[in-house]
Amino acid sequence: MGMSTKPPSGMRDFLPEELARRRYVISTIQKVYEKYGFVPIETPSIENLSTLMGKYGDEGDQLLFRILHRRDKLARALEAETITEKDLGDLGLRYDLTVPLARVVANNTDLPKFFKRYQIQPVWRADRPGKGRFREFLQCDVDITGTQSLVAEAEVCSAVSEVLLTLGFENFSIHINHRQLLKALIQAAGISLDNEATTLVAVDKLDKIGMEGVEKELIERGISTEQMQKLVKLIQRPENIVESMEIERLKSALAGSYEANKAIDDLTKLCKLLNESPVAGRYSIDATLARGLGYYTGPIFEIRSSDFGGSLGGGGRYDGLIGMFKGSEIPAVGFSIGFERLILILEEKGLFKKLAIGPDVMLCHFSDVEESAVVKAASTMRKSGVKVEIYPETPKIGKQISYAESVGAKFVAILGANEAVAESVSLKNLETGEQQTLKYADVASIVLK
Amino acid sequence: MGMSTKPPSGMRDFLPEELARRRYVISTIQKVYEKYGFVPIETPSIENLSTLMGKYGDEGDQLLFRILHRRDKLARALEAETITEKDLGDLGLRYDLTVPLARVVANNTDLPKFFKRYQIQPVWRADRPGKGRFREFLQCDVDITGTQSLVAEAEVCSAVSEVLLTLGFENFSIHINHRQLLKALIQAAGISLDNEATTLVAVDKLDKIGMEGVEKELIERGISTEQMQKLVKLIQRPENIVESMEIERLKSALAGSYEANKAIDDLTKLCKLLNESPVAGRYSIDATLARGLGYYTGPIFEIRSSDFGGSLGGGGRYDGLIGMFKGSEIPAVGFSIGFERLILILEEKGLFKKLAIGPDVMLCHFSDVEESAVVKAASTMRKSGVKVEIYPETPKIGKQISYAESVGAKFVAILGANEAVAESVSLKNLETGEQQTLKYADVASIVLK
Repeated sequence: MGMSTKPPSGMRDFLPEELARRRYVISTIQKVYEKYGFVPIETPSIENLSTLMGKYGDEGDQLLFRILHRRDKLARALEAETITEKDLGDLGLRYDLTVPLARVVANNTDLPKFFKRYQIQPVWRADRPGKGRFREFLQCDVDITGTQSLVAEAEVCSAVSEVLLTLGFENFSIHINHRQLLKALIQAAGISLDNEATTLVAVDKLDKIGMEGVEKELIERGISTEQMQKLVKLIQRPENIVESMEIERLKSALAGSYEANKAIDDLTKLCKLLNESPVAGRYSIDATLARGLGYYTGPIFEIRSSDFGGSLGGGGRYDGLIGMFKGSEIPAVGFSIGFERLILILEEKGLFKKLAIGPDVMLCHFSDVEESAVVKAASTMRKSGVKVEIYPETPKIGKQISYAESVGAKFVAILGANEAVAESVSLKNLETGEQQTLKYADVASIVLK
Repeated sequence: MGMSTKPPSGMRDFLPEELARRRYVISTIQKVYEKYGFVPIETPSIENLSTLMGKYGDEGDQLLFRILHRRDKLARALEAETITEKDLGDLGLRYDLTVPLARVVANNTDLPKFFKRYQIQPVWRADRPGKGRFREFLQCDVDITGTQSLVAEAEVCSAVSEVLLTLGFENFSIHINHRQLLKALIQAAGISLDNEATTLVAVDKLDKIGMEGVEKELIERGISTEQMQKLVKLIQRPENIVESMEIERLKSALAGSYEANKAIDDLTKLCKLLNESPVAGRYSIDATLARGLGYYTGPIFEIRSSDFGGSLGGGGRYDGLIGMFKGSEIPAVGFSIGFERLILILEEKGLFKKLAIGPDVMLCHFSDVEESAVVKAASTMRKSGVKVEIYPETPKIGKQISYAESVGAKFVAILGANEAVAESVSLKNLETGEQQTLKYADVASIVLK
């Protein structure tokens, strides 16, 4: 005794029923992503720390799970006079799926020019666990590399929207902003470029701490009251206006630098594309959207829902990231679904159908039947595709049947010594109570009907 | 530049074509396992080191990937006068799927009494990488807990055999031994119980170093020449004898202790069960089989093939492991397929069919077509289930079509300004060259035919 039997903090075991729901969502996501022409890749759980560090901002770097050196390497590290974190390991666990994609694209020169990849794998963050927030969680990403065309933005937004709609979840909106627009707005508020990063970090907290919280945080970060007020006025969207009006408002508020005009132009075009896609009527221009990650360079997105505080997923354009690995730049845009929150919402809204997990047939048998005859019966039924579980012991038949019911078996097949000689079973439908005697080979015709 | 773009040593990226093959094998394994009544679970990648340590033997403990403490915990650990490995972390990566299963069974009192679970997830071992040997690799386990019935042994052996047969791989044999039999043989050779573990470690190396190597290793480990020779004679199976004769030989060679008799009896019964299963004619009693892991207590198995040195998977009964977590004992038996080696063999033997990975339709378009019209065309075709990729830019149509061919698209749909007005495309079958003009909504009727 004495050993804990729970998984570590922020980690979870998935038992069959919950796993069936997760698999159903994963398979829906795969099918939709594939309908958009995305193809799957997988990358290792462990990456070199040099691959991961410096891509997610300081906070991200601190949340990395690092792997400890072993044997000689560890011994050497521990011999040093002063030991720091970076001496103790050079590997870490995958923090997201975007940086590994960038590495893969840089590493494989024979990929399609427009590489449309999807990836559904766990990532790890040493974050404080909370509702819908875990230390190991699944991400479901789509990305398109190799083009600056806004069609790519429209495609990733369409694909994630169609995933949600296919799962029966309609109460969402994709919030859209543009990093260059946000930059121009920060400048227009009189905030210097030096303070851009810290301003972004403050604005990014909006959905956690509200606008008042952001105002306070901006002041704490050294932004003057006047600049703060100007920025808040610039980014806050007036109520009851449509997308085109919001774009007009932002355009006229800005000085009209090349970057600002380009950003406004991008958003205008993107809206036009989205209006012909499943995202039509389900998006909203939101100049307050910042997105935490450091690598975004163009349009940025986030899925919001009044059914859930925080975001259901997000993404954006990151034209510089692959170049950090490759030397030459390759433009890219992606979108990631927050799988764990999606599962939470689908559960809360009752959008999961009851999924069967028991066997088709529980094979029950009397103690005077030879076990080899029981194995033969099961083997024969399985040959025709029936899912058979053998009750492995021989208590009274009633107890075996109760057990079959408790694990969700659809039928019981009862085998006595006489039946075994005739290679037949007494098959009982546990739902209707119907019973009949059938040859092993004929069980499929009833069970799989 | 400068950053490495390769995955870390022993780790791999899987690109779409390779991943399609892996997924095909995984889905075959799932289907077969489910036909045997196994249900899936998943456990976290990270476990407490207290869960993992002391289960796999010393060598296993040394191959664990450990997670480094962070922030305060790390700072405190580094302040100490002398620092050892165990001060620097209390978490590690999953080393196999059996120990996590034992923890889960101990932690969940409401599981079915006979829990038949399968689990297909990666595990991590800091082993020297080699052919078919990686530091992150997939395991595909079936286990049955809660019964001492040998039907459970027969079921796990049958399930893995049917997996291999379903994949078209027939050249294998399941080698079967029994830990108690091996123990009795070691005793019968005059080796003391104190030397049992070291003897097992030496015998376990048989398929790597051959019988001569094992003999040398036994002597080095302090076994006398006489004992060594006696043991080798006892465990080596004479050529050209059938299973029942080998069992008879072992029976008469042994003193006949209760454990030895029970083991002989188990093997006799198990053979009878296997003869009625897909394993019939594909197994072999092998008293030299030792299995490295420390937790086995009864029958042990290993898949061997003349197509491959080493094992394709293995397993056995471990009636004590769950009790290490739970206090009270729960018997269990399991079998694990070595997925990476299986993939290697299937590739070498050409047992993979060509799997399609390209889109059904590459949507190509002239530059005078509005991009929003292109998105509309794609959205409409996708509504009827067609996998559509939009060519995201507008070079000459010939270039777009060549690209479609290069990524394995089955059709191209060409959209000009006139077609866009009529909501139709010119659809071309890239295999036959057939071409026709169709409404967006009618493309599915040709493409999905």
